[in-house]
Amino acid sequence: MKCVICKRNAEIKVLASFCPDCFITHYERRVERLIKRWRLVNKGDRILICVSGGKDSLSCAEVLYRLKNRFQYEIGVLNLDVNIPQCSNERTKKVVEEFCKERGIPFYFTSFAEYLKISEIDKIFKVSRRPICGTCGMIKRYIFNRFARENNFNKVATGHCADDIIKFFFKNFESGYFSWIDKLKPFTPSFHPKVLPRIRPLYNCLEIENYAYVKFKRIEIATCVMCSYFTRKDEWDEIFRFIDEKKPQFKLNFVRNLAEVKIIGPDKEKEYYECEICGEITDKKICTVCNLKSKI
Amino acid sequence: MKCVICKRNAEIKVLASFCPDCFITHYERRVERLIKRWRLVNKGDRILICVSGGKDSLSCAEVLYRLKNRFQYEIGVLNLDVNIPQCSNERTKKVVEEFCKERGIPFYFTSFAEYLKISEIDKIFKVSRRPICGTCGMIKRYIFNRFARENNFNKVATGHCADDIIKFFFKNFESGYFSWIDKLKPFTPSFHPKVLPRIRPLYNCLEIENYAYVKFKRIEIATCVMCSYFTRKDEWDEIFRFIDEKKPQFKLNFVRNLAEVKIIGPDKEKEYYECEICGEITDKKICTVCNLKSKI
Repeated sequence: MKCVICKRNAEIKVLASFCPDCFITHYERRVERLIKRWRLVNKGDRILICVSGGKDSLSCAEVLYRLKNRFQYEIGVLNLDVNIPQCSNERTKKVVEEFCKERGIPFYFTSFAEYLKISEIDKIFKVSRRPICGTCGMIKRYIFNRFARENNFNKVATGHCADDIIKFFFKNFESGYFSWIDKLKPFTPSFHPKVLPRIRPLYNCLEIENYAYVKFKRIEIATCVMCSYFTRKDEWDEIFRFIDEKKPQFKLNFVRNLAEVKIIGPDKEKEYYECEICGEITDKKICTVCNLKSKI
Repeated sequence: MKCVICKRNAEIKVLASFCPDCFITHYERRVERLIKRWRLVNKGDRILICVSGGKDSLSCAEVLYRLKNRFQYEIGVLNLDVNIPQCSNERTKKVVEEFCKERGIPFYFTSFAEYLKISEIDKIFKVSRRPICGTCGMIKRYIFNRFARENNFNKVATGHCADDIIKFFFKNFESGYFSWIDKLKPFTPSFHPKVLPRIRPLYNCLEIENYAYVKFKRIEIATCVMCSYFTRKDEWDEIFRFIDEKKPQFKLNFVRNLAEVKIIGPDKEKEYYECEICGEITDKKICTVCNLKSKI
C-alpha cells in the first residue's frame, strides 16, 4: 500500500492511503478548509479549547495550535475533571498539562466539585433524572461557557467529529428532538451576550483519523475507560460500522450536507432568561445546574 | 405467538403480533390516522391512484377504496405500462383491471409508447443520460400528472411507503440533492395550477406490512422482476435490513419525524414555465420529456 501523495509506504487508509507525514498535512489542510468555509475564527479571537485528554480533543487542540499564526487567534486549554470515578483518571491532568507546557499554551484546570462548589458531586448525578452521560454533558456545557467567559475568551472549541455528529443526528432525529439538530454545525452562533459561540473544527474529520493524527504526531493521550472508541458498543456504533463497510464515504458526505441545510422542526422558539441564582442563561427561571444543586 | 388484540394465533409480527383480521383493521386505521393528520383528502376530491400491480400500489388502492365513503372522495386507477421489457408483464394489466372490476373502480390504462406517441420507446432510454430507472420515474411522474388532469382528477396518489421514503432520503441527502428532500412528505402541495397535489397514504406503512395486507386480503398482485422486494439488492437495502434487526422502530420513527420538519438547502428557488412544446410545467424552456422525444 503506497501513499497517494509521495508513493512511500502508507500507514493509514481511510478513504485514501497516506504515509504519516502526508496524512498529517492532509488532515491539517482539511481542518483549515473547514475553518475558512464556515468562518470559524477571526483575527484576535481568544478560543478556549475543551480538552478531556482523549484523541479527539487533543487533535482539536493540536490542530488549532498549528493554525494559530495562520489565522492570528489565541488559544487556551481547559481540562475539566468530571468527578465520575469511571471517567476520572489521575493521569489525565498531567497528560493535558504536559501537552500545553511543551507548546506554551495557557493551561486551565477545574473540576465539577471545585467549580460548582459541591463537596459530594456524585449526589448531583443521583438527583438528576437524566442518564449519567446526559447530566455530565449538560454540566460540562455550563462550565465550558461560563469558565471561558470569566477568563476573557470569546469562543469555545470542542473536539466533536463526524462520528459524534452523525450519531447525535440520528438519535435526536429519531426521537424528534429537533431543537438540537440545528446545532449540529461547524459553527453555533451566540444567541445571547452571555453565551459564547461554539466551534467544531473537527466537524468533518473521522474518529479513526483523529486517532491516526495523535498517533503519527506522537501525542500522548489519556483514554477514559467509559467512552473509549474501542471499548464502547451501542447499537448505533454497530450500525455505523456496518455502513462504513458498505459505503465508506457516507459519514463524511452526510455531515458535509448536514452543515449546509437548515432543519426547522415544529418546536416553538424558546425564550431565554438569566438564572435567578447564578445568572447563566436558561429557558426556565432557575437553570438546570442550580436546580440540581438545590436538590442535593 | 398470539395476536395482541384478540389473542388468537398471530400470523404477522412487525412491531407487534397480529392475526390477519386484526392486522387489517390496525393497518387501515393507521392509514386513516395519517390521512386525517396531514389532511390528505377533502370531501369531493377526485383521486387518481397510480397502480403498477405490485403490493404497495395495490395496498394503496385497496385502502383508499375502503376509506372512500368515510371521507367522501372518488377514486380512479391508472395502470401505466412502461414498455421496458424487464418491467412490463402481460399479466399486470389483467390483474389491475380485475381488481378494479371487482370493486367498481373506474380503470384507466395507457403505456409510455401510446401516451407519448412514440413507436420505439426503448430509444428514449438510450438517448437519456440518466439511469433507466431515473428516466422511467421521470416519465411516469409526467404522465401521472398530465393524465390525471386531463381526466378531471384533482389529486394523484402513489403507493410510496416508509421504506421508499427513507431510502430516498438517505440517497438524496448524501448526494446533496436537497430540493427533493422536502417533497418526501405525506402531502406535496401543488405549486402551479397545472401540477396536481400528490398524496402518499402509505407514508408510514412498511413494505412488509403492505405485503401482509395484500396477502391477508387475498389480493392478487403482479410482481415486476426488476424491483421486487425479495429479489432486488443494493447497499441501502442491506443497510436498512441491518438497521431493522438492531432498531426495529427506526424506519417508522424516522419518517414520522421527517414529515414534521422543513429542510431548507442552499439551492436557489427554481422558476417554472410552461413547456414550449407540450405545455406541461418545467424549469426549462422545453420539458425533459419533450427534450428526450426530440433526440430520438
